[in-house]
Amino acid sequence: MTKKHDKRMVGEVPAKQDAPPAVMALALPQAELSQEMQAFLAKCEEKLGYVPNVLLAYAHDDAKLAAFATLYNDLMLAPSGLSKLEREMIAVAVSSVNRCYYCLTAHGAAVRQLSGDPVLGEMLVMNYRAAALSPRHRAMLDFAEKLTEVPHLVEEEDRQSLRDAGFTERDIWDIGAVAAFFNMSNRMASAVDMRPNAEYHGSVR
Amino acid sequence: MTKKHDKRMVGEVPAKQDAPPAVMALALPQAELSQEMQAFLAKCEEKLGYVPNVLLAYAHDDAKLAAFATLYNDLMLAPSGLSKLEREMIAVAVSSVNRCYYCLTAHGAAVRQLSGDPVLGEMLVMNYRAAALSPRHRAMLDFAEKLTEVPHLVEEEDRQSLRDAGFTERDIWDIGAVAAFFNMSNRMASAVDMRPNAEYHGSVR
Amino acid sequence: MTKKHDKRMVGEVPAKQDAPPAVMALALPQAELSQEMQAFLAKCEEKLGYVPNVLLAYAHDDAKLAAFATLYNDLMLAPSGLSKLEREMIAVAVSSVNRCYYCLTAHGAAVRQLSGDPVLGEMLVMNYRAAALSPRHRAMLDFAEKLTEVPHLVEEEDRQSLRDAGFTERDIWDIGAVAAFFNMSNRMASAVDMRPNAEYHGSVR
Amino acid sequence: MTKKHDKRMVGEVPAKQDAPPAVMALALPQAELSQEMQAFLAKCEEKLGYVPNVLLAYAHDDAKLAAFATLYNDLMLAPSGLSKLEREMIAVAVSSVNRCYYCLTAHGAAVRQLSGDPVLGEMLVMNYRAAALSPRHRAMLDFAEKLTEVPHLVEEEDRQSLRDAGFTERDIWDIGAVAAFFNMSNRMASAVDMRPNAEYHGSVR
Amino acid sequence: MTKKHDKRMVGEVPAKQDAPPAVMALALPQAELSQEMQAFLAKCEEKLGYVPNVLLAYAHDDAKLAAFATLYNDLMLAPSGLSKLEREMIAVAVSSVNRCYYCLTAHGAAVRQLSGDPVLGEMLVMNYRAAALSPRHRAMLDFAEKLTEVPHLVEEEDRQSLRDAGFTERDIWDIGAVAAFFNMSNRMASAVDMRPNAEYHGSVR
Amino acid sequence: MTKKHDKRMVGEVPAKQDAPPAVMALALPQAELSQEMQAFLAKCEEKLGYVPNVLLAYAHDDAKLAAFATLYNDLMLAPSGLSKLEREMIAVAVSSVNRCYYCLTAHGAAVRQLSGDPVLGEMLVMNYRAAALSPRHRAMLDFAEKLTEVPHLVEEEDRQSLRDAGFTERDIWDIGAVAAFFNMSNRMASAVDMRPNAEYHGSVR
Repeated sequence: MTKKHDKRMVGEVPAKQDAPPAVMALALPQAELSQEMQAFLAKCEEKLGYVPNVLLAYAHDDAKLAAFATLYNDLMLAPSGLSKLEREMIAVAVSSVNRCYYCLTAHGAAVRQLSGDPVLGEMLVMNYRAAALSPRHRAMLDFAEKLTEVPHLVEEEDRQSLRDAGFTERDIWDIGAVAAFFNMSNRMASAVDMRPNAEYHGSVR
Repeated sequence: MTKKHDKRMVGEVPAKQDAPPAVMALALPQAELSQEMQAFLAKCEEKLGYVPNVLLAYAHDDAKLAAFATLYNDLMLAPSGLSKLEREMIAVAVSSVNRCYYCLTAHGAAVRQLSGDPVLGEMLVMNYRAAALSPRHRAMLDFAEKLTEVPHLVEEEDRQSLRDAGFTERDIWDIGAVAAFFNMSNRMASAVDMRPNAEYHGSVR
Repeated sequence: MTKKHDKRMVGEVPAKQDAPPAVMALALPQAELSQEMQAFLAKCEEKLGYVPNVLLAYAHDDAKLAAFATLYNDLMLAPSGLSKLEREMIAVAVSSVNRCYYCLTAHGAAVRQLSGDPVLGEMLVMNYRAAALSPRHRAMLDFAEKLTEVPHLVEEEDRQSLRDAGFTERDIWDIGAVAAFFNMSNRMASAVDMRPNAEYHGSVR
Repeated sequence: MTKKHDKRMVGEVPAKQDAPPAVMALALPQAELSQEMQAFLAKCEEKLGYVPNVLLAYAHDDAKLAAFATLYNDLMLAPSGLSKLEREMIAVAVSSVNRCYYCLTAHGAAVRQLSGDPVLGEMLVMNYRAAALSPRHRAMLDFAEKLTEVPHLVEEEDRQSLRDAGFTERDIWDIGAVAAFFNMSNRMASAVDMRPNAEYHGSVR
Repeated sequence: MTKKHDKRMVGEVPAKQDAPPAVMALALPQAELSQEMQAFLAKCEEKLGYVPNVLLAYAHDDAKLAAFATLYNDLMLAPSGLSKLEREMIAVAVSSVNRCYYCLTAHGAAVRQLSGDPVLGEMLVMNYRAAALSPRHRAMLDFAEKLTEVPHLVEEEDRQSLRDAGFTERDIWDIGAVAAFFNMSNRMASAVDMRPNAEYHGSVR
Repeated sequence: MTKKHDKRMVGEVPAKQDAPPAVMALALPQAELSQEMQAFLAKCEEKLGYVPNVLLAYAHDDAKLAAFATLYNDLMLAPSGLSKLEREMIAVAVSSVNRCYYCLTAHGAAVRQLSGDPVLGEMLVMNYRAAALSPRHRAMLDFAEKLTEVPHLVEEEDRQSLRDAGFTERDIWDIGAVAAFFNMSNRMASAVDMRPNAEYHGSVR
């Protein structure tokens, strides 16, 4: 990743009926990355043992990688009334509607990891209604799914359902923001056929 | 916007059957903004004559405002094989599927402005098939709409259609990225009932 | 319109990737019109400054033009418990579901005109839920949208909702009739690619 | 129908879980009908042995009855490149998508009658793909169904398919007009819960 | 059916734009049937006057015919808290959503037969909401339709609606099982283009 | 399972917001099972280490259990031009459309087991388009998905696509039959909220 030659391809156009691409299906060379982005990717590798492919895909452009990483980290890791697990639950429920292979794989693993409950991760991938959710979590995922499927029908009574389930104004922002973000991320993954790292599949089963 | 008291609300929960909120439907106080964000909003006001309400909505949190602005500016304003008008065309076509009042209003105005063609702006709001588009633009909007409606069905042949219409690998990234972004932005606007600035409506009619 | 030679074409098959047709995409000669229809079109021109293209499209057949004009005028202009603005609001809400360029343009302009509220016209084009509607108007448009999207699900409780909002039996007929009519008109416009007159676009912005 | 007292109700609000209404579910008195409309209904009764309930439903208002009858008669009975059977086939295929009980019953009977083929009538009610249609009829019904389900997707290539199947410009108008009309009529029937005359059910089985 | 030569075809690949196949659109020879299956088909013929084509279609394989017949007979004919008519009503309501020509024809006839009410049969084919159903039957068909259209949304409250309408635990199983079965049967019929016996069409009209 | 007292419940109505049911959400006592069914369940337990919960759910009625098991075993285990893995692939692709938690869990595990490829199992659960399938398998799953989503649109050209991919007439029957069966099974599982055995989740990861 942090190699000196900036022409390493981060993706490739797939040969027909061949194996899928390693990272994504666009043939784009890796950009000369800034110090900051090199450090960020190195830190990912150190902490996780690998650089998530979504970052490699964005690495064809330093500014795009930085913008994506900043937004992602704020949404998923910064202080919030939503726990990190709750944010990952939203990620998976949204990705289930959009049937996004990359995000279901990566964030399904995150739900298994953060909850220590492999079955919960699977249920959210398949149909969150199968899980015995608390009223708080049910309201949260119902809102996220409606926002994903029929955003034009979301109205004040939907926000009120979240308030009734105990969420604050800021929590509602965060639920909306995470659900909205994965509607972007799912589509970015589909647009370029992003491929999840192999590490996710067997993790916390 | 740049007032000293950081408790000005950037949104309000709407009274029933009353007027809609001025900015958004969440009651959140404006954050103490960083120098950088204050300067950014001031520059918007100077250039446009107003601060777009989407920025005021995000201004309840400095980091979120900065992350959003950085991503937005990179996608819509940075150098790209897509012209700024083309990026706005994608914004409107996506927002039309999602029936997003905020984005159709703001980016419909942008299409009218950048194209100097008020009717084109309206056609994209209503149904882009009504416009006599070049094959390049038709392929671009067909991809954006498919990515919006059925992202799980986007495959290599869809990317190939873009290549056949003359788009480069990087252009395909950019088309996907702009379409994906507005699938986020439309849903954020719906989640919190964001309201467009009054200035858009009559602009370039 | 009232020229002596009856072979003037009212439409044309569009050349590929060319400009859209002036009136519609069928190559049909104008009919020899009856005195009554000639007078009707002349009156339109006098009152509006132009003959609406939908009438020019129907003018390939005198009987069809007369039947359409009679039905239209009764529905939209005759005495009713619904104001003319309310009937235009239904027209736009229905056309928004069907994404009909012709009707959204023409009747969006009519809503702006009759309400003196350009923003209301835009909201109805984009998503009527964005407007701060009275309970009466909300019930009216909810019924019209349901009748448009899932007519087979309309039942007694839907009619009762209208009664509860203060509508009479005859009002319910009229709401149904206007919504049903635009489901016809939207499809006629799509079937032949009718093009709205240029005058609508800038009107009452 | 031609009784002197104009207060005979043409519909009734249904009692709960009771029998359906005789004509429609709105309680509206019959209008004092014009000579012309009285003659028209009398002629129906003479020719068919009954007055179709759709006419009784419209008979709460003389002008509306006249407008509807004129439009209907022009579309379904006037000279056209489409046979009367073809127009009825379109009526049923459209009503099948909209699952309209009134129109499927009345026009299903008309297809059986005009074709002398009871099974054809049933197939069109259920799924026109089950019928062994000529390429002409298949193209005609494919266009009508697309116009019904996704009017915003109808484009020049759809009209061209009709031309390729041998239809003239005027035929295309007529196919569009009949399909569009039944999208109105289906919704009018659903809006007021119109009930077909008992005579249709057993006819030409 | 019980002929000695086992190579009689039970289906045929249809010639283009020709008549539909007699039984189904797969060219499969009839199997050498077991004594039990021969007796079963003979009994059908004796009782009904014909062997239902669905059985002829399955007769290309003795084990498949036996498995289908056993399941079918248990579901539709064995003792249950649901009457045979109620089971047929579910069959038709499900087949209406799936627009299955074979099942609508065969089971529409069964509803007419068992109810002695030809109009009820037609209503269920077209839109069961047109029928004046008891609350029990309405709850039963609402459950069957939801299970057909959006099985992933069926939850405890849907089962509770059935209990509230007076159904037992076993009745709920049976409603689910019949609705689920016809979701299989409709698709089997569509997969191989099964054709209903001519006898159904005119029966009990 | 083979206990002497036949009143053991095979399901239970779930307490609100409590854990999900162990087997299913209907409170039905286990039937006195026939020798044959007792032997069958014992054999399952011996071979798999557990009795699949779907069998326990059906065990409230001996005849229903037998009919289900016979049909299932014929479809999934009897000789066929489709391998057992191919049949399981269809099962998962269909269950993915229907978002059936039970079947995705049980048959996802079967795909992982039979293919020895855990990632293939996940891809089919999420979106089979993510897998690098052979043209044979792609055609097979495209047919199964279309039959699941829009059975009324399946026509001769869909069967021809299977023939073109090398499938025989009997293979087409089997593809249709397996896809149709899981459209039943998914709905039966949803109707009664069947719960998969815990053993599936961690198997072959």
